[in-house]
Amino acid sequence: MASQVIREWVGFQQFPSATQSKLLELIRKSKQERRNTLTVLVMGKGGVGKSSTVNSILGERAVTVSAFQSEIPRPVMVSRSWEEFTLNIIDTPGLVEGGYVNDQVLDLIKRFLLNNTIDVLLYVDRLDSYRVDNLDRQVVKAITDSFGKEIWRRGLVVLTHAQVSPPDGLRYDEFTSRRSEAVLKIVRLGARIRKQEVKASSIPVVCVENSGRCNKNELDEKILPNGTAWIPSLLQTITDVVLSESNGILVDQKLIEGPNPNNKGKLLIPLISAFQYLFVVKRIQKWIKNDIARESRPSWA
Amino acid sequence: MASQVIREWVGFQQFPSATQSKLLELIRKSKQERRNTLTVLVMGKGGVGKSSTVNSILGERAVTVSAFQSEIPRPVMVSRSWEEFTLNIIDTPGLVEGGYVNDQVLDLIKRFLLNNTIDVLLYVDRLDSYRVDNLDRQVVKAITDSFGKEIWRRGLVVLTHAQVSPPDGLRYDEFTSRRSEAVLKIVRLGARIRKQEVKASSIPVVCVENSGRCNKNELDEKILPNGTAWIPSLLQTITDVVLSESNGILVDQKLIEGPNPNNKGKLLIPLISAFQYLFVVKRIQKWIKNDIARESRPSWA
Repeated sequence: MASQVIREWVGFQQFPSATQSKLLELIRKSKQERRNTLTVLVMGKGGVGKSSTVNSILGERAVTVSAFQSEIPRPVMVSRSWEEFTLNIIDTPGLVEGGYVNDQVLDLIKRFLLNNTIDVLLYVDRLDSYRVDNLDRQVVKAITDSFGKEIWRRGLVVLTHAQVSPPDGLRYDEFTSRRSEAVLKIVRLGARIRKQEVKASSIPVVCVENSGRCNKNELDEKILPNGTAWIPSLLQTITDVVLSESNGILVDQKLIEGPNPNNKGKLLIPLISAFQYLFVVKRIQKWIKNDIARESRPSWA
Repeated sequence: MASQVIREWVGFQQFPSATQSKLLELIRKSKQERRNTLTVLVMGKGGVGKSSTVNSILGERAVTVSAFQSEIPRPVMVSRSWEEFTLNIIDTPGLVEGGYVNDQVLDLIKRFLLNNTIDVLLYVDRLDSYRVDNLDRQVVKAITDSFGKEIWRRGLVVLTHAQVSPPDGLRYDEFTSRRSEAVLKIVRLGARIRKQEVKASSIPVVCVENSGRCNKNELDEKILPNGTAWIPSLLQTITDVVLSESNGILVDQKLIEGPNPNNKGKLLIPLISAFQYLFVVKRIQKWIKNDIARESRPSWA
């Protein structure tokens, strides 16, 4: 991943000028705090809008979006640079397959991130899903087991499809706050965040609408039904999280290998490591080469 | 269930007159074919819009709808009568809980239906979900194991949220047909419908939009983005399925008890039966009494 090609952020210029000014303000503020790089990890179940959110943040079609199946069976990092500030976004495959959490995907993501620091985790789900269940909790638990509970100090809940018409009888703000609360509750349960910790590690929720049919304000910025220009708002919240006192999550060899006290089959680790070197690491190296090759072409090609 | 109170279909008069005429036409056609009763079973995962669909078909708020949790932990039958024609609709709890198919709910539904004939199964899912997975297949498989493969000859796929804006780049009809095809494929897999049977037992797909914000045509009928007045269209499709040559599914003691060759713990059956009599049957009897008591009050009370 270290050899990732960093391209100029062409999508930046595609934003309406009001959005550009706000983003520049955030970039300058980050640079003042000696932060020249921002690495954002995007995770969640399949089909919730992870790739679309990545593209919206970048202002370009950097990753392929397919509503009906996952186009990315593996993590993809896109790096964009503007005013000597680098934004890295890692899009990842859905964490659920056939009703189960796919631990292999999580393992793949960790290995892909080796020696990198995650500044922010975007945990993506849909605003217009009406239920949370134990599976959501298992997804959050799996993320927590993989990256440590601390990742939620750098976590943001992103709810897509925010231009939803709430089910009958509910006002928009009422609906979004109930759905946010339900998702946050599951996140707290899955991450085992205790009651007394809730205040200290409060996780922000941001609504987004990636559709091309998103309403716009008079400044041509995409807005939510409540009027919020959501792209600057999302990046503002990301910056707030990054500039908070907590630290990013360094994905080192130790994190990848555990120690996870619940790790089953510990004795197999040397064997697994050998297997993983041969099949996983080699494959990732190949992907990175492909990424570089692909990234050297402009994204609109 | 036999003691269910049949009330006059007051919701019928709430429909726009164009819809009323079409429904009357269907009722008269059914009666000509000596069908004075229609029993519709509604099943699917939680939060997909089963209860809302029931209310839309009836034209009244007969069952409670709650976006965020299931308000019906057990099956509920609503019976409405018009021109000596009786429509029974059975709303059911979601079949998935925490990432697993809830077999107990299926068992409950079967027992609730004892000695009744299911004329039509509405298998409900969302149009605006983008993925099908193995869990969907397991839901269909569980329905098939419970009621027999034949139920799909009386099956209809109902896709809710049909006023969706398709994800970028897809036309509405393109999107609905791709989603329909994906759901049908999973239904065929779960129901083990073989390739050579597909044509003979083709399952219709109907899109519905239960939101109060559904667009209307000049006749005040709720329409889909393609202009279809969906309530008459759904009832037309239901009538077509009922008047086809296949038979309804009689839920008798034999169907309830199996024989399911895959049934685990066969030896426990006598014990389970005793348990079920004491706890399940007794409870159902109590519910039915409550239903009768509740149904005697007008639904708008």
